[in-house]
Amino acid sequence: MNWGEKAQKRLSEIAQCSLDGPGVTRLPFTPEHRKASEQISQWMKSAGLNVSMDAAGTLIGRSDGNGPALLMGSHQDSVRHAGRYDGIMGVALSCLAVEQLRKSDQLPHFPIEVLAFADEEGVRFPTALLGPRALAGTVEAGIIDMMDKDGISIGQALREFGCEPEGIMNCRRCPKDVRAYLEVHIEQGPVLQNEGLALGTVTGICGIERNQISFRGQTGHPGTVPMESRRDALVSAATFIKSVNQDVPNALRATVGSLQVHPNVVNAIPDRVDLTLEIRALLDDDRAAFANMARDIGETIAKKHNTPFNMERTYVQSAVPCANWLLEKIAAATLLHQDRGIRLPSGATHDASAMSDLCDIGMLFVRCKDGLSHRPDEYASSEDMGKAINVIADCIASID
Amino acid sequence: MNWGEKAQKRLSEIAQCSLDGPGVTRLPFTPEHRKASEQISQWMKSAGLNVSMDAAGTLIGRSDGNGPALLMGSHQDSVRHAGRYDGIMGVALSCLAVEQLRKSDQLPHFPIEVLAFADEEGVRFPTALLGPRALAGTVEAGIIDMMDKDGISIGQALREFGCEPEGIMNCRRCPKDVRAYLEVHIEQGPVLQNEGLALGTVTGICGIERNQISFRGQTGHPGTVPMESRRDALVSAATFIKSVNQDVPNALRATVGSLQVHPNVVNAIPDRVDLTLEIRALLDDDRAAFANMARDIGETIAKKHNTPFNMERTYVQSAVPCANWLLEKIAAATLLHQDRGIRLPSGATHDASAMSDLCDIGMLFVRCKDGLSHRPDEYASSEDMGKAINVIADCIASID
Repeated sequence: MNWGEKAQKRLSEIAQCSLDGPGVTRLPFTPEHRKASEQISQWMKSAGLNVSMDAAGTLIGRSDGNGPALLMGSHQDSVRHAGRYDGIMGVALSCLAVEQLRKSDQLPHFPIEVLAFADEEGVRFPTALLGPRALAGTVEAGIIDMMDKDGISIGQALREFGCEPEGIMNCRRCPKDVRAYLEVHIEQGPVLQNEGLALGTVTGICGIERNQISFRGQTGHPGTVPMESRRDALVSAATFIKSVNQDVPNALRATVGSLQVHPNVVNAIPDRVDLTLEIRALLDDDRAAFANMARDIGETIAKKHNTPFNMERTYVQSAVPCANWLLEKIAAATLLHQDRGIRLPSGATHDASAMSDLCDIGMLFVRCKDGLSHRPDEYASSEDMGKAINVIADCIASID
Repeated sequence: MNWGEKAQKRLSEIAQCSLDGPGVTRLPFTPEHRKASEQISQWMKSAGLNVSMDAAGTLIGRSDGNGPALLMGSHQDSVRHAGRYDGIMGVALSCLAVEQLRKSDQLPHFPIEVLAFADEEGVRFPTALLGPRALAGTVEAGIIDMMDKDGISIGQALREFGCEPEGIMNCRRCPKDVRAYLEVHIEQGPVLQNEGLALGTVTGICGIERNQISFRGQTGHPGTVPMESRRDALVSAATFIKSVNQDVPNALRATVGSLQVHPNVVNAIPDRVDLTLEIRALLDDDRAAFANMARDIGETIAKKHNTPFNMERTYVQSAVPCANWLLEKIAAATLLHQDRGIRLPSGATHDASAMSDLCDIGMLFVRCKDGLSHRPDEYASSEDMGKAINVIADCIASID
C-alpha cells in the first residue's frame, strides 16, 4: 500500500467516527470526536510523535528537535452530512508526511507539531476556530460560556472531554517558538480539476465582507398601477444583482446568497427587498473597490427608479497573505511531483486564517472531484493525496 | 349640502360599520355588514326604491318601471384595514344618482335596481363575487359549504344573516330581463390623478394570468467557486425579472410579486429560485403574447447560464370588454361635466366582471388620491363624487 492509499484507508476508517445519517457528521467534544482522537493519536504515534491535548481540545503530536517548531495540521470536525476530506485530510497527510520523513531519516532539526483542531466549522457553538485562536492568543475571555443549542457551554463540553477549559488562555504560544504553520486542505472548488492539476500553492486567504442591502419602493395593485408609475423594489434589486454580477473582476467573488421580498405575494408590487452581498478578495483594496462600485450601482438604480437604497457592512475579515518564503518552498516542492505549478487564493477560511495571528502561514490545496465539498460525495483521489504527502515532506525537508 | 358632499357624509357614516382597528374592516354576513345594510336600506328608500335582500345577501333597491331593468351598484364589503370608498362608494353614488333623477323627475321608463353585493373581496371565505355570480347563474353547487377560518360555512353565515342559502341557485336572472350592469368605482390607480381628470370611462376589465416560475442552479461555496463556474439561480432570476420588466408593452401589466431563494443564506450560491409572474391585459391575445415572450426570455437565460427554467400557468381569467353602446353613453355623459374624456382599462377585478356573464357591462372610474386603495388613507373628493353622480344620472337618462 503506497502513501496515498494509506491516507485513503485512514480517512475511510475515521469517517466511521460520525453520527448516523448520510456522510460524516462529527462535532467537537462529542463521542465521535473522542473516537476520532483515538485514531489520530495512533496516526501521530506511527509517525513517532509525542501526543498530548491542550486546553482547547487540540490534539498535538510533536517531534523532538531544537529551535522554533513548524506547526502543521487542520481540523478534525465536520459540518453536518459532510465528506471525508475537509479538514481531517490535512491531519492525516501531515502525519503521513512526518512518518515518511522519519522513515527516510530526513526529519528536520527543528520540532514538528501536527495539530488536530477540535472545532473549525463552528457548527455546534456560535463561534469557530477555537483551537488556532487559543494558540494565537486571540480567544475572547468569555468564550467558554458560549452555549450549544442544548444549553451545554464550551467550558462544560471541554471539561467532559477531559480538558481544563480555564487553561485556554495559557495555550497561547510565543511567536519566537514557532517557525510557521503549514496546512494542506482540499480546494473545495473546481480550479485544480479544471486545470488538470493535483496540487496548487495557495497565495493567501481571501478577505470577506458581508453587506446587508435594501431597496425600498411602494407597493400597489398589480393591475391598477401602470408600469411607468411603479416603484418596484424587486425590479431594482434584480437590476442590481444582474449589474453587480456583470462587473466582477477576475479573482474576486461576489455572491447575493439571501434575498427577502415584502410583502411577497403574487398580487402586490414589492415595496421592499432585503438582500446580502458577500465579497471575497485576496486584496482588501480590491474588495473595498468592488464594494464601492456596488454601492454606486445601487445608488444609481435607486435614483433612476425612486427606490431608496441602503447598504451596510455587517461583517468584515481581512485577507491573509501566505508568507512568501513558505509559498515559494511549497511551489518548488510541488514542481518536483507535478509538471506544472499553479498558484491560487483560498476563497474559504481555514485554521490557517486564525494561525496567521501567531506566525507565517502556508497552504497546499489538493484537487477535489468537481469542486464539491461539505457533502457526502466530496472526494480526493489516493494518487493526488500521495503527491501531497510527497510535496509536504519535500517542503519540510527544504526548510532550514 | 350638494350631492358630492352628501355622498361624502354617507360614506363617512357607513365607515363606522367596521371592526375596530385602523380604517374600515367590514366582512360579509357580520354585525358590521348588518349595520351597513340598515344604512344602505335608508339610502335606497331616500331614492324611492323598494328594498329587498336576495338569497346571496345582496341588498336590492328597485324602482318601478317596464321592460328589462338597468342594474347598478357595487359591493358593501372591504378588505381588512381598508378605506371608505372601494365598493361602497359605487352603492352610495348609484343611490344618489337615482335620487337626483327622481327629484328632477327624470326617472326612466324601465326599472332601475341598485345592488349592494355582500362579498366581492373574498376575504372571509375562499371564494368571491358571490352576489353577482348568483345573479349570473355561475355559482358552483357546493359553494354554501365553503368554510371561513372559524369553520362557519357560507350557508350558515347566510342563514344567520337572515337569508335562505338554498335559494342561491334561484337568484339567477334571465338575460332578457336585464338591460345592463353599470358600476362606478374608484380607479385604485394613479392614471386619472396624473391626467388631472375626475372621471374616466372604463374600456374593459383586464384578463389575468399567474405563472409559477423556477430557475434551478447549483449551490456551492461563495469563496471557492469562481464566478465563471457558477450556476447561480438568483443571477438568472434577476436577469429574467429585469428583462421582462424592460419589455412590457403599453397598457399591459406584469408583476413579479413573490420570490423565494434556496437555500437563502449569506454564504451559499443559490441553487433554486421560485417566483410568480402575473400578467394583466385588456386583450387576451396580448397577454398570451407577453407570456410567450417571458417564456422565451427565461429559456434563453436558462440556456446561457445552465440554470434550467420552468414556467407553469397556475391561474387564468379572461378579459371582459365593456359594451360599446354603454361605454359611449358613459363617455358622452362624462363630457357634459368634464372638459376632456379619458378611456382606460380596469386592471382590477370588479363585480362587473362576474355580471358580464349575465349582461352588458359599463364602468365609470372616479379619481382617488395618489392612486391608493385598500388602505385607510384611500380618498376620493366630494367634488369628484358629485361629478360622478351627475354623469351616472345623465347616462341613465340617455338610455332609451
